[in-house]
Amino acid sequence: MTLEAIRYRAGSLQILNQLLLPHQTVYDDIRSVQDAYDAIKSMKVRGAPAIAIVGCLSLAVELRAGAGGEDPVTFIRESLCRLTSARPTAVNMGRAARELMEFAENESMEKNSEQLRESVIAWIEDMLERDVNDNKKIGNFGAQHILSGVPRESVTILTHCNTGSLATAGYGTALGVVRSLHTLGRLKRVYCTETRPYNQGSRLTAYEAVAEGIPATLITDSMAALTMREMNITAVVVGADRVVANGDTANKVGTYQLAIAAKHHGIPFYVAAPSTSCDLSLESGRDIIIEVRPPDELTSINGVPIAASGIEVWNPAFDVTPHQLITGGIITELGVFLPSELQAALTGRLTAL
Amino acid sequence: MTLEAIRYRAGSLQILNQLLLPHQTVYDDIRSVQDAYDAIKSMKVRGAPAIAIVGCLSLAVELRAGAGGEDPVTFIRESLCRLTSARPTAVNMGRAARELMEFAENESMEKNSEQLRESVIAWIEDMLERDVNDNKKIGNFGAQHILSGVPRESVTILTHCNTGSLATAGYGTALGVVRSLHTLGRLKRVYCTETRPYNQGSRLTAYEAVAEGIPATLITDSMAALTMREMNITAVVVGADRVVANGDTANKVGTYQLAIAAKHHGIPFYVAAPSTSCDLSLESGRDIIIEVRPPDELTSINGVPIAASGIEVWNPAFDVTPHQLITGGIITELGVFLPSELQAALTGRLTAL
Repeated sequence: MTLEAIRYRAGSLQILNQLLLPHQTVYDDIRSVQDAYDAIKSMKVRGAPAIAIVGCLSLAVELRAGAGGEDPVTFIRESLCRLTSARPTAVNMGRAARELMEFAENESMEKNSEQLRESVIAWIEDMLERDVNDNKKIGNFGAQHILSGVPRESVTILTHCNTGSLATAGYGTALGVVRSLHTLGRLKRVYCTETRPYNQGSRLTAYEAVAEGIPATLITDSMAALTMREMNITAVVVGADRVVANGDTANKVGTYQLAIAAKHHGIPFYVAAPSTSCDLSLESGRDIIIEVRPPDELTSINGVPIAASGIEVWNPAFDVTPHQLITGGIITELGVFLPSELQAALTGRLTAL
Repeated sequence: MTLEAIRYRAGSLQILNQLLLPHQTVYDDIRSVQDAYDAIKSMKVRGAPAIAIVGCLSLAVELRAGAGGEDPVTFIRESLCRLTSARPTAVNMGRAARELMEFAENESMEKNSEQLRESVIAWIEDMLERDVNDNKKIGNFGAQHILSGVPRESVTILTHCNTGSLATAGYGTALGVVRSLHTLGRLKRVYCTETRPYNQGSRLTAYEAVAEGIPATLITDSMAALTMREMNITAVVVGADRVVANGDTANKVGTYQLAIAAKHHGIPFYVAAPSTSCDLSLESGRDIIIEVRPPDELTSINGVPIAASGIEVWNPAFDVTPHQLITGGIITELGVFLPSELQAALTGRLTAL
């Protein structure tokens, strides 16, 4: 069974409180947009796709209870503004807000308040279903592509950071590929890097693996190359914060180093990401600005200092992996593409719509 | 001024208690072999060369107070046995014990108890001086070799783990090279990896850098490749637990991955190690058995759990870097050698003695 990080049914929403993970499994009720704002701000929920879906679902919950009265459009606009401001760098919430607002404004021209609420709720519920289905497609496309190289064997995967149910609407991207392989009975083992400095691997990916009985082994980030040499790794699969037109990929810091090590060992390196994470407006990774985060993420854990006082720190949150190192391909809900094929594949689809 | 991790004068020994670092700077008195055994066992002192010198100096302190009475050879033998058993994998203590025992037995044939004590104390004090001097030679040879490639510029170094005053008799090996560059006024900056899982970089190397005013920046292990690309790294310099005949080098886990990333960026990769760390009895790194340590080094910090409960862990303490990746050279107290030159250089010296 897939770990449920988001529990939604009409009128009711609960989220797995990630601040208490991995030590306690507690679901918090999200009864309002304000609850969702607080949960996003305090990082009870994290991961750009998960933030967007929790934000929108909180709006659906309020709308079902009649929020907005005779002027739901104003209520929706104010709610989306507030939700977007909780973590402004999480691009998916901004994108969802723009699309949903446009939809709501169009609908409001021909529908009354009650009908408008119904159609916006339906749009949001569709979004949840579509996101999860897209992740399942990513999982299956990725699994088939990896297995096509090793027809009869079980495979061993190395992954980085958390890209599972805890970071997405459900199922996951890179970890979705791992889930699909496990479901097919073809996963021998997944190696998870702990993913310093924020430890998404040891806290979250490890939690998902234990919860679902996926055979998994935790390593430090520094052990990845040794693991590739010693543990017969079939493929490295990571997620993406942003994939640009030439296939260069921004992702959690450490991804670039894994890609270099994979290349050195002749192991295929895959990026798994929905097409909504592809940004064709940027030509190459050189145009991506890397967020540098506060030093205390390295120098303390849970508020307890772990480094020498007074040391300077460099803490870039992401790095950019050049497309030449993405040797396996980019796994999307439309299929698996080489970096050089990505732009054509995505624009072909956009034209067809 | 170089950080003093070991304070010795005739009859008196103090060590910087590394269990309290980096948060408290406390020197503990070592008045006996038993004190040294306890300090080594509890890891108040760590690093194979530092363990050997502290063990031997504690024996010198007892001998100066007249220990062993009319039969100092028996006292020396029992003391060395005890000291060697504190951390049996730290090879330097074992090597020092064998050499010192042989010396003491030879001396005992022609000297009385008092004279024997004096000559053993002198041997141990020579060992301290020789080790520190060898490290200074390593520092200078390494600095000159690195600077020979960049005649007028200041250099930026990336290092791993702790190889400084806190791991050796003093000054350090790889960090000794960094110290020499700093003393020459040619060090722009050193980047230190935190060195998971035991955090020797963030706790110890950072502490030494802050204590001596060496410009240093802490990064996670996963940021090393990005740092190489973005920060104009001149050279990567690491220490060694063991260098074998063909130049393959066992060192703290993560070294292999750094060497791959350095090669990818065309950055020279150096190993700094005294000739006593070279083991010509092994032909290649394939013969080195890698110690696997307990899972809780990854899953907790200071006893507080940081990973999902129930996750499996692989925790190799070391890895082996093949000689092909040691592109800068192996820095010893005899000079800097390519891996292919090492065996001839060391055996030539041994013949000459």
